[in-house]
Amino acid sequence: MVISTEQIETINANPLYQTIGMRVISAEDGRIISHLTPPENVCWPFPGQPHGGILFTQMDSTMAWAALSKAGEGTNCGTINLEIQYPSPAKGGFFTCETQVLHFTGRSCFVRGETRDKDGTLVAMGQGTFRIIKVHPIL
Amino acid sequence: MVISTEQIETINANPLYQTIGMRVISAEDGRIISHLTPPENVCWPFPGQPHGGILFTQMDSTMAWAALSKAGEGTNCGTINLEIQYPSPAKGGFFTCETQVLHFTGRSCFVRGETRDKDGTLVAMGQGTFRIIKVHPIL
Amino acid sequence: MVISTEQIETINANPLYQTIGMRVISAEDGRIISHLTPPENVCWPFPGQPHGGILFTQMDSTMAWAALSKAGEGTNCGTINLEIQYPSPAKGGFFTCETQVLHFTGRSCFVRGETRDKDGTLVAMGQGTFRIIKVHPIL
Amino acid sequence: MVISTEQIETINANPLYQTIGMRVISAEDGRIISHLTPPENVCWPFPGQPHGGILFTQMDSTMAWAALSKAGEGTNCGTINLEIQYPSPAKGGFFTCETQVLHFTGRSCFVRGETRDKDGTLVAMGQGTFRIIKVHPIL
Repeated sequence: MVISTEQIETINANPLYQTIGMRVISAEDGRIISHLTPPENVCWPFPGQPHGGILFTQMDSTMAWAALSKAGEGTNCGTINLEIQYPSPAKGGFFTCETQVLHFTGRSCFVRGETRDKDGTLVAMGQGTFRIIKVHPIL
Repeated sequence: MVISTEQIETINANPLYQTIGMRVISAEDGRIISHLTPPENVCWPFPGQPHGGILFTQMDSTMAWAALSKAGEGTNCGTINLEIQYPSPAKGGFFTCETQVLHFTGRSCFVRGETRDKDGTLVAMGQGTFRIIKVHPIL
Repeated sequence: MVISTEQIETINANPLYQTIGMRVISAEDGRIISHLTPPENVCWPFPGQPHGGILFTQMDSTMAWAALSKAGEGTNCGTINLEIQYPSPAKGGFFTCETQVLHFTGRSCFVRGETRDKDGTLVAMGQGTFRIIKVHPIL
Repeated sequence: MVISTEQIETINANPLYQTIGMRVISAEDGRIISHLTPPENVCWPFPGQPHGGILFTQMDSTMAWAALSKAGEGTNCGTINLEIQYPSPAKGGFFTCETQVLHFTGRSCFVRGETRDKDGTLVAMGQGTFRIIKVHPIL
């Protein structure tokens, strides 16, 4: 399913995204894109660079929406595992994360993602497995 | 090396740890333990449960200190990769992460970690590779 | 459950283990140990060193037995994901892999493993998630 | 660099590939494709399905060639870490693995891969980090 603009606005209002400076900007079926403009308090220990855990949080959550766009209304999901690699330092203060579902079984979803800086340099790449659940539906 | 109580206090004062509710509590050579008491704004989408990215941030940073305790003064480190798995939902509002260096080559450090809730239930397990660097020394 | 000596003999007779030179040597509940004496044809491209994929095969299969020792009779399991890291070159022609279940939910099993050479040097470390299934029972 | 047809023939003659039924079939710069036709002795414990470790071996080695195609003549490489996920059972006896370099720093190479069966079903997805070395050059 395509997540509607209204749903995206609701998603983006959550407190975690406000804390780390994240916004979902596009939500096609199985393909979600988000932006990160990290505030200074999450840029540590390297000045101006978001902590790797903040980049992970952006990727994990963006992937989860990709999984949910496959699972549809009335569902939520939990991360079983996620592996992240950091090819380059995260410079420049603005990052775009693109995630894509590679396989969906109904109960599990296998997703990939890449995060790039303003110049297109790859700062993080990840792949994860998500479990679709029916409690606390979020869509 | 053992990280001194004074150094630990400096570490714990950083803005990222304040944001996510994290504190290093013990720092032996190659073995670091931290606590997480996540504030409500990082507990999303499941009420009362820190986002998986917050648990990842705690683990990544706790592992990094384990690597730095091996690398010694005048160093910093960057995460090359980290794989995290989430065996159980993160309930109860208080989490302990223990990390341990398994192998240190001088330039790279291989580290493992487990995060448990108040009752000892395993909520996250991870393993990662860290690159020791000499810029922006943090110890 | 403890896997009996008779069951271990049956396990060890399988053609894959013959091909790569692997044997399960100990199978307590949730804790399995195997040996690898790799023949020359799987030691490539570095002379005398088993390919990383052979070390992975040993670890994956040893972990699977650890999962099955928790799941019990009438089950089999499939690997959902496995992350492996290679801290040191695999020298000396003989390797011991120890695996341990960290968490078992009934349907999934979270397992860790380490492989060491004759001198105790860590050559591989892994963690994986296994799905318990009821088809093609193997115990 | 593009790996020449002659070099590919030399690669494919190695004993490990003979043992597991693997062949590199295409080697553009940073993008390598291989085939796997696994013999019965590596199809265990599920009849007709290669062990996950054999699929891993194919992926790891195909990724390594992708890294080497970036590193150029006079080099070899070692796997630092590789994470593999198995979305579907590996059926049908013939598998194609496509790997691609996402980032190359000169000393490290970040690579992804997917393995699909005859019908295009995804049976494995991986991402790994490779260290470029100058000993035992293989190209």
